[in-house]
Amino acid sequence: MRLLITNIALLCNAEGPASLISRRSGAEMSVMPCMPDAWLLAENGIIHSFGSMAGLPEVHADVVIDGTGRLVLPAWVDSHTHLVFAAPRDGEFVDRIKGLSYEEIARRGGGILNSARRLNAMDESELYDQSLARLDAVMATGTGAIEIKSGYGLCLEGELKMLRVIRRLKENAAIPIKSSFLAAHAYPVEYKENKEGYLNLIIDKMLPQVAGEGLADYMDVFCEEGFFGVPETERLLEAGAKYGLRPKIHANQLYHSGGVQVGVRQNAVSVDHLECVGDAEVAALTGSSTMPTLLPGAAFFLGMHYQPARKIIDAGLPVCLATDYNPGSCPSGNVPLLLTLACTQLKMSPEEAINAVTINGAAALELEKELGTIKVGKRANLILTKPLASPSLAYLPYDYGNNNIERLIC
Amino acid sequence: MRLLITNIALLCNAEGPASLISRRSGAEMSVMPCMPDAWLLAENGIIHSFGSMAGLPEVHADVVIDGTGRLVLPAWVDSHTHLVFAAPRDGEFVDRIKGLSYEEIARRGGGILNSARRLNAMDESELYDQSLARLDAVMATGTGAIEIKSGYGLCLEGELKMLRVIRRLKENAAIPIKSSFLAAHAYPVEYKENKEGYLNLIIDKMLPQVAGEGLADYMDVFCEEGFFGVPETERLLEAGAKYGLRPKIHANQLYHSGGVQVGVRQNAVSVDHLECVGDAEVAALTGSSTMPTLLPGAAFFLGMHYQPARKIIDAGLPVCLATDYNPGSCPSGNVPLLLTLACTQLKMSPEEAINAVTINGAAALELEKELGTIKVGKRANLILTKPLASPSLAYLPYDYGNNNIERLIC
Repeated sequence: MRLLITNIALLCNAEGPASLISRRSGAEMSVMPCMPDAWLLAENGIIHSFGSMAGLPEVHADVVIDGTGRLVLPAWVDSHTHLVFAAPRDGEFVDRIKGLSYEEIARRGGGILNSARRLNAMDESELYDQSLARLDAVMATGTGAIEIKSGYGLCLEGELKMLRVIRRLKENAAIPIKSSFLAAHAYPVEYKENKEGYLNLIIDKMLPQVAGEGLADYMDVFCEEGFFGVPETERLLEAGAKYGLRPKIHANQLYHSGGVQVGVRQNAVSVDHLECVGDAEVAALTGSSTMPTLLPGAAFFLGMHYQPARKIIDAGLPVCLATDYNPGSCPSGNVPLLLTLACTQLKMSPEEAINAVTINGAAALELEKELGTIKVGKRANLILTKPLASPSLAYLPYDYGNNNIERLIC
Repeated sequence: MRLLITNIALLCNAEGPASLISRRSGAEMSVMPCMPDAWLLAENGIIHSFGSMAGLPEVHADVVIDGTGRLVLPAWVDSHTHLVFAAPRDGEFVDRIKGLSYEEIARRGGGILNSARRLNAMDESELYDQSLARLDAVMATGTGAIEIKSGYGLCLEGELKMLRVIRRLKENAAIPIKSSFLAAHAYPVEYKENKEGYLNLIIDKMLPQVAGEGLADYMDVFCEEGFFGVPETERLLEAGAKYGLRPKIHANQLYHSGGVQVGVRQNAVSVDHLECVGDAEVAALTGSSTMPTLLPGAAFFLGMHYQPARKIIDAGLPVCLATDYNPGSCPSGNVPLLLTLACTQLKMSPEEAINAVTINGAAALELEKELGTIKVGKRANLILTKPLASPSLAYLPYDYGNNNIERLIC
């Protein structure tokens, strides 16, 4: 199958020196050349060739799309989501407006424990159907690869159920999916007074079975005061590493909790959230291969302060953006809106924001060799926009609340 | 034409004592009864009757919609927009991210003056076509009545062009539209050193023609330091009043500029923006019929502090919400997203936010007798949602970034 798209503006974020290939850091994040009047040929889902319309070769194509007025860019790679869940938590949303904090709601048995009760009560096929509908919805807004976590089971059976749903999504979806094992998302009620018991359950019972069935790509821990501290996180990550699972952890959402440092120490692919980042965290990240991933949708939805993206970028580090799609702190998997949040609240430029959720998203899932840039030989997971009132990439985060994605090509 | 909708959850914000009829103030804003399993019959665009499914009478209907799993609520009334404009301003969006303030951009000839140049260069029919497309888009997200301002002409011809486009939209659209005359949006370049000359132009030349052609419902002024001060505002509003135009003004966006007080003094229908509201502004509004209208979309998009909705509501006042849809400070006319901003950033409850953009929006356009609540005899401008994962009205602002509006009935 050969697909030719003509007369497009083509974002080319694979240009530049070799240092720009695997991820974008610091000033590199501002680089995003655009070919204003271009064509692109995809063959069997792979980018075959592209160039300027003036030099369009004679090609045979099975499908030709005239993209006049439209942009083509690499599909979003959403590297942090909890897309598999059983029920919305709009009741807690109202409680929070009335003044309860996220932590207070968690202490009352709301939050993650609420999602766990609902998930454990739902059968696997309904959970799959709901999750597939959500996946279709985020693909319609341009998401072309995604990570999905467990963590609403909090028991062997529930965690396996979630991971099997994710596996079924992997098998049936048109886009790449990675899964993270997040049993250490919260302590379940029955282990409230026996935290050691829950850690042992994860390490001795869950991990062997999850790894044995090949259900997880990454090991995740919610490293935070009131959840899993640094020593517990370290122990869990070391246990995961024995099964070949690299860490990808929740860090520094509520406090300067040491999560970033333990993630870097344990060679995490990414440390995610980062509302609380100071000089110590920046120093830990400098020189490491660990990706700092920011989740401004959660900060927005919870009404908390935003992540210090400028501090991180200006220190020469990369920044990745992801939605954190989940029923509690960010019930939205809409990446175009995430770009608007990044630009208006985190003061990232449109180029930085788009690099953060394409090539850096791919790097945060170790998919940078096959996704995240327009490059011959990479997967042709592409966004074709609608005709835009302004032919600039800034228009995407600017024109917020409208869906400018005509289709995801994948 | 008789339309019957069955098996719906029906928001009934017309219930309660007589004091609740025209607008909602203070604690009344939290009141929004819901009939969980209801039907509604509309006849020739008017609400004929409604009730509980258990008591559904034998009725003849030309169209029957089975609304299982769906909510029906009054359509949004968006009482403050600049929907008629010629071009996006995504370039200035990038300038702002890089650190320029809204005022600095305005001083450079950007901002409103930029929009004025573009608008004056565009012919009326193209302006109409673009504006109609935007109107269709906001109707698809549930807007069932709207106000549109002039103010990007800043000369007789340009202002008339805008107002004639709005008149044509009024004639052709399926929803009610009100127009506001906002020549006093900014001083045009050629009057920079002759402000008195521009005021005279508005009062002596524009107003007679605008009023003579019946092109405006309201008189608007951008009352703000650096734009039009209190004495100029007062003079303009008094001139408008001679032609029967009630004021509806921009006030207190950037400073405690006295805009609220002059609006109340001049019997304004509403004073809009209100980022800067202290005790003096609350005192001025107390006992007046002037509606305080908040535009959090602009505060969000500009990265400014939000309007103190709680202070206003807790003082027993009403609050109206509107989008401020415009190409500079809020390029979005998406009311569901506005509800999310109101709940997460202004800490309004979902009930308060929905009353603010239905019955209070209607009051801010003097349409409260025909719109804004589910009440027999009112226009059947209704929102029918998609089937919702949670059958609560909180789900609408909670599930942000997704369009849960199946259709606008009007």
